[in-house]
Amino acid sequence: MSTPAPPSPHVGSRPGGRSARVRAAVQRATQELLADETNEPLTIPVVAARAGVHATTVYRRWGSIGELLTDVASSRFSGAIVVPDTGSLRGDLERYASDLAKDLGDPDSLPLVRATIGAGGEQGASACTRERQQQLEAILEREQARGNQTPTVQHVIDAVLAPLYYRAIFTDKALTPDWTRTLVSHVLPD
Amino acid sequence: MSTPAPPSPHVGSRPGGRSARVRAAVQRATQELLADETNEPLTIPVVAARAGVHATTVYRRWGSIGELLTDVASSRFSGAIVVPDTGSLRGDLERYASDLAKDLGDPDSLPLVRATIGAGGEQGASACTRERQQQLEAILEREQARGNQTPTVQHVIDAVLAPLYYRAIFTDKALTPDWTRTLVSHVLPD
Repeated sequence: MSTPAPPSPHVGSRPGGRSARVRAAVQRATQELLADETNEPLTIPVVAARAGVHATTVYRRWGSIGELLTDVASSRFSGAIVVPDTGSLRGDLERYASDLAKDLGDPDSLPLVRATIGAGGEQGASACTRERQQQLEAILEREQARGNQTPTVQHVIDAVLAPLYYRAIFTDKALTPDWTRTLVSHVLPD
Repeated sequence: MSTPAPPSPHVGSRPGGRSARVRAAVQRATQELLADETNEPLTIPVVAARAGVHATTVYRRWGSIGELLTDVASSRFSGAIVVPDTGSLRGDLERYASDLAKDLGDPDSLPLVRATIGAGGEQGASACTRERQQQLEAILEREQARGNQTPTVQHVIDAVLAPLYYRAIFTDKALTPDWTRTLVSHVLPD
């Protein structure tokens, strides 16, 4: 449980001070509530109460629960995975798929993806995967810089990224290491 | 706008009478509200008001907005696509992928998928795609009955079904006929 920061005449004037703390508290409250797996959809008043701030503060800053979730997803799904550099395209893609599978298995990950798709529409959904697509581009560009041919980014998105998200979101099947390697073998046959 | 059915002493005792009408009115109201693309998540009181029934009726029957959406998705995504029978596996899969792409482009389809993923969790998401996976199984089994080898169901789910849903949900790219044919060619090379 967070409590609001004590009011201070100095803090409001410092950029990134109280404002950054409010943002952090609201983001944390959102993730905690999602992890609780209640049966009801998240609303701004519920998030505000958990964060210890006024609902009007949250409405003024984010506008809607969809925009708040999109912001939380942007933060959560940026930088969480490092682009691997194993020396080979197959190694990079296998490591990448395995890291993403692990990340989607984190308890704070899938509930956030689901809620953001539900309330944030296309913009929210795209905030969950934009950086993932950029990372795949980086992996392919490095292989091209080594002087090697690669599949297209679109092919790798369709063959590796899409099934990872599909299986996580729509099924109760585990994202196993054997299966993630199989996905890579579809785009890089032996 | 629907209005509640007039009370009648005979209707309540007829199975599928008033009860079926309430279900239809609530399902229709849910789909209409999703098509409105409001900024706020759907709630049971809002759906009940639109359907012209008491919120308690909706709570009693469905329990939560997630369960209601799961029920609506089960109805909407059952039977909407007929398993094609073109005489060849490639033809069947191409027709199937194209039909699914069209269905995901319907204005009442993607908002329902997104909302059901958001509020219905794994059970809701699975209600959107369960029949799709069964249809792919039927296509592959028919090809096997013709005495031909086929890819596994899992491979076709990963290579064809998953990218269709991934692109619809996470990107603003169109699900074009060229692209859906490319997906099938990944699992059935020339």
